[in-house]
Amino acid sequence: MVDGEINSRWTGFTGQGEENMPGCGKCPTGVTLDDLFFNRVRETLVREGIPYQWEALNDRLPADTAPSYCMRNFRVAAGKEQGTFGGHVFQDSDLYKWLEGVAYSLRWHPDTELEATADAAIETAVAAQQPDGYLDTYYIINGLDKRFTNLKDNHELYVAGHMIEAAVAYYSVTGKRTLLDATLRFVDLIDRQIGPEEGKIHGYPGHPVIEMALMRLYEITGDPKHLKLAEYFVNQRGQKPLFFEEETVRNGNEFYWRNSPFRYQYYQAGMPVRSQKNAEGHAVRAMYLYSGMADVARETGDVGLIEACRTLWESTTGRRMYITGAIGSTEHGEAFSFDYDLPNDTVYGETCASIGLMFFARRMLMLEAKAEYADVMERALYNGVLSGMQLDGKKFFYVNPLEVVPEACRMDPHKQHVKPERQKWFGCACCPPNLIRLLNSLEDYLVTEREETVYFHLYVGCRIERGGMAIQVRTEYPWQGHVQIQMDIERPVAKTLALRIPGWCRAYTIKIDGENAQGEYRDGYLYLTRIWGDGDTVDLDLEMPVVLMRANPRIRKDVGQVTLMRGPIVYCLEEADNGRDLHLIHGIRPETAHVRWEPETLCGVVTLTTEAERETVQGFTELYEETEAESLPVQLRWIPYYAWANRGLGEMRVWVRK
Amino acid sequence: MVDGEINSRWTGFTGQGEENMPGCGKCPTGVTLDDLFFNRVRETLVREGIPYQWEALNDRLPADTAPSYCMRNFRVAAGKEQGTFGGHVFQDSDLYKWLEGVAYSLRWHPDTELEATADAAIETAVAAQQPDGYLDTYYIINGLDKRFTNLKDNHELYVAGHMIEAAVAYYSVTGKRTLLDATLRFVDLIDRQIGPEEGKIHGYPGHPVIEMALMRLYEITGDPKHLKLAEYFVNQRGQKPLFFEEETVRNGNEFYWRNSPFRYQYYQAGMPVRSQKNAEGHAVRAMYLYSGMADVARETGDVGLIEACRTLWESTTGRRMYITGAIGSTEHGEAFSFDYDLPNDTVYGETCASIGLMFFARRMLMLEAKAEYADVMERALYNGVLSGMQLDGKKFFYVNPLEVVPEACRMDPHKQHVKPERQKWFGCACCPPNLIRLLNSLEDYLVTEREETVYFHLYVGCRIERGGMAIQVRTEYPWQGHVQIQMDIERPVAKTLALRIPGWCRAYTIKIDGENAQGEYRDGYLYLTRIWGDGDTVDLDLEMPVVLMRANPRIRKDVGQVTLMRGPIVYCLEEADNGRDLHLIHGIRPETAHVRWEPETLCGVVTLTTEAERETVQGFTELYEETEAESLPVQLRWIPYYAWANRGLGEMRVWVRK
Repeated sequence: MVDGEINSRWTGFTGQGEENMPGCGKCPTGVTLDDLFFNRVRETLVREGIPYQWEALNDRLPADTAPSYCMRNFRVAAGKEQGTFGGHVFQDSDLYKWLEGVAYSLRWHPDTELEATADAAIETAVAAQQPDGYLDTYYIINGLDKRFTNLKDNHELYVAGHMIEAAVAYYSVTGKRTLLDATLRFVDLIDRQIGPEEGKIHGYPGHPVIEMALMRLYEITGDPKHLKLAEYFVNQRGQKPLFFEEETVRNGNEFYWRNSPFRYQYYQAGMPVRSQKNAEGHAVRAMYLYSGMADVARETGDVGLIEACRTLWESTTGRRMYITGAIGSTEHGEAFSFDYDLPNDTVYGETCASIGLMFFARRMLMLEAKAEYADVMERALYNGVLSGMQLDGKKFFYVNPLEVVPEACRMDPHKQHVKPERQKWFGCACCPPNLIRLLNSLEDYLVTEREETVYFHLYVGCRIERGGMAIQVRTEYPWQGHVQIQMDIERPVAKTLALRIPGWCRAYTIKIDGENAQGEYRDGYLYLTRIWGDGDTVDLDLEMPVVLMRANPRIRKDVGQVTLMRGPIVYCLEEADNGRDLHLIHGIRPETAHVRWEPETLCGVVTLTTEAERETVQGFTELYEETEAESLPVQLRWIPYYAWANRGLGEMRVWVRK
Repeated sequence: MVDGEINSRWTGFTGQGEENMPGCGKCPTGVTLDDLFFNRVRETLVREGIPYQWEALNDRLPADTAPSYCMRNFRVAAGKEQGTFGGHVFQDSDLYKWLEGVAYSLRWHPDTELEATADAAIETAVAAQQPDGYLDTYYIINGLDKRFTNLKDNHELYVAGHMIEAAVAYYSVTGKRTLLDATLRFVDLIDRQIGPEEGKIHGYPGHPVIEMALMRLYEITGDPKHLKLAEYFVNQRGQKPLFFEEETVRNGNEFYWRNSPFRYQYYQAGMPVRSQKNAEGHAVRAMYLYSGMADVARETGDVGLIEACRTLWESTTGRRMYITGAIGSTEHGEAFSFDYDLPNDTVYGETCASIGLMFFARRMLMLEAKAEYADVMERALYNGVLSGMQLDGKKFFYVNPLEVVPEACRMDPHKQHVKPERQKWFGCACCPPNLIRLLNSLEDYLVTEREETVYFHLYVGCRIERGGMAIQVRTEYPWQGHVQIQMDIERPVAKTLALRIPGWCRAYTIKIDGENAQGEYRDGYLYLTRIWGDGDTVDLDLEMPVVLMRANPRIRKDVGQVTLMRGPIVYCLEEADNGRDLHLIHGIRPETAHVRWEPETLCGVVTLTTEAERETVQGFTELYEETEAESLPVQLRWIPYYAWANRGLGEMRVWVRK
């Protein structure tokens, strides 16, 4: 047990390896978010999202909604209700992800009623735990004799991973141990069953997450077996002979991906992780694995593993990522495909995958203080992650396309995974609770501290309080490029403030107490070192013009096209503003852009208007002609991509012909 | 029996309805093809294609080729060999289509050895016929009790249809009755089992072809029951209650297309054919059905049915056809999708569908003498049909894409139906014998005669002999626009020559005996009426410049792109000539086009070279930048689309950014 060893609540990592890393350090305790942009998002989550999802987990949404069965499964597994198992094999994880999100919300928005609901949910879950610590309702209901026999497909370790994440978060925030103790019992059982020792199963999860979860557990327990198990899962993965291949043969299953180009790389398990040069297979699994790899690498200082993380980062973000931070180019396996293959209308771009990309980015940042990681984190957050949720917090995208024609989604079976409107719930409802846990823990992504340096990664209004010192961050980001950082300290303190200069920013000014200042620029951060006094104020002004963006010409599907960005926000055109047949639009004139803050539109957004042209179809009588289509001038209205599909069914397009 | 009623060999239709039609009339007997372009194609067919496919039907191709089982099935069904049924339920049709193609080849290229092989094949097939006339090896081998119980899926009537087509062709050419007599026995059985009368099955085929086959049978038998059955199949289709729905329930099957947007329209059987406004479902089935509808309509003069044909023609060719004459936009169901949805890289564009489009076009032409039908026939022939066969006659495309990146075919499961190279054979080998029967019967597509008018639809070198009159057609079409038509007659004759002015032609001159002449232009034909003397010569000169073609802007996937055509030939760019990353090419300058006849290239083609630009990728370091890619001038070499993929694996592209 870990009684004596748990050293603090939410303290950040304490491992050995990270001392030698040039990373950005730990997330300080005491970050309180207070932000124009995110306050609304998070209040929606607390007011609407969390209760709505609790109803979903209890099958109390309207009858036309995909049922969850999640809470019922726990009651059935505990013998409190008669019934069969419902939903996917990983259905338990929905509760754990919801609980983790609730824990984070209680951190910034205490709510005794919600906490009581969560406590009761934990009691329900834990009641199903077996005497030996096992807890996975799928096998408890369907027969424990089969447990641990199909790690590839049946998600036991995935469920355990989310249980760990929930337990650590809930314990860290509330101090309550019920779920943590249950989790430690389950982890002990897993550790007795799986590992390198003879007689144990030499396996690893089909769907990673337990790796990074164990590292979080290790963070609060300091128990070496938690680190060791995480390390084992990372390093055993893909070793020959392939465990998943053996398992498939043993179970007499037909290998589902046998004819797929990725085969065992669907699970990122076709070769050892250090041999993997490309982001391949299921995108969410990839992100969770890479995040766990980065955690283990940071803790152990394993140079080869760090290099593997860098290689996979470069593959993911340098050759296989959409401008929105979406990843996963194909519905087949919800997977990566190949370099520069980024189709906009058949994309997968799962919300969870962009969330996973933020996990990975954050961990790379902790390995190396380079702003490119924060740039990707920001790109995903303001675009491909936020797009996953309706503005009212009650509907969700699983797939986040960059080009939608509703008729095509209805009529083209290869686009039926692309929904032109957000859905109330999903049979596989991984994304909604993932949004809750990410957005409710956004505090942990903003700043980090390492020795005497405070790194500012994302510019979100907040107050950072630690050890008698406070820093207030005020900004109207992402709508304005001005960020004010003010010291609220009792006595002068020597500190370095490392301010990220976003990759999108071409010019900025920095002032300290109203005077132009200089700093040292390194790897995307401006380092300001001095002895700060109370009330000292840094004003960072990031120029935020409207920018005409182009894709790397290697990306076939974007060639000859452009889009607009302003700051970190990717813009798009919607039918609601610009009529149907958006593909007819071309000749975007960014120099005509008019930038307007519209508080009543889409919960408050900056819209852009530009002049452009639009082809007419009238001249054409046949399918193929010599005729050149006539174009007429047109005024376009652009909205932030994340806010699309909040005004009814219609076309949407990010990339437009130049 | 039909002894007395068979009135001629290959005489054309003799029905009532067509007398009242403004159509182009009948195909005259005695057309002998002798053509620069097609002689080579057809010699390849006879020398390589027919023997190669016979080897395939007998499973004598190399071991890495998909086996056919076709001839073995007949021997097993006849009890001459032990074994199970192999291949698809429609495997018998491969023999019938091959036999039909052989029959046509014997018409222009007598070959006693080949005829003996065909006779023996017929004996083998007929030996399997049951005493009551039944002949379908799938049910003979697997159990006759189930015959006629699954018309929707099991292709019995499709097989019967191809048997009829083969029998009519083989009888018409050779005068041999073995296959014809067996066919008449089978048709009699079908007529006893299926039809409107009580006690009969009120069904129709899942895969049409028997409709047009029965009309060809009727053409030589004049037996009203053959017309009546064809008419029944056309008119019963899609009537409520849906026969296929009832059949599915009766068989306890799960309906395969239940979640598809087209459902029973996959079979063009979701509603009566006269209610169908759009070309929907499986494209080959659609073309075969529409062809049968046009045959019945011509014969019966049924105005409603003619109107239905026109509506479906307009949907097919006016809104759902590729520039190559390919049809079928999606692999899902090998089907049409929706208006203007014509993706170039995920297209289906089955070779058989373009062949079917030629069937349909020819029949529409016989209904109405409008050149738009011949234009489509020509478009399909020179592009989407010919592209189906390797220049050596031994490899085939099932799918005919307009844009190929080999890596995408390998890595993107949604493009795995698109092969970047032609295949040696297919498990479902419908296309290779379809090419044989179409190209070997090309004589029947060139000219028709109606009363005193001879219509010239396709300009192919040939000699037309009939009733003491001969007309010689000389041309280097499609490489040159000059066509010479010369009369070879014993005594002056009053005739109208109706010369099609192709839709692609903007200017032409016409001379009679060297003097400029005038004609009456109507619906795409130039009518020249006079009393012709021996040696009289018509010289038609169709201007054939290189033309920059654009797609109707409603076609999303072609917008902003162009391609080149010259005459009926659609051009494309290949990696072999223009390097990789063809998507980087833009700025095509058609005015720089250089037209060159290259006798040694691709069995002799006219190539085009043009100046253009090509984006460079060097400037880009990130995935998304403000940078505008630099472009460098480049010289492009274009080849005819039909000849692509004859020089090894590589990219290909028809549409290029303008």
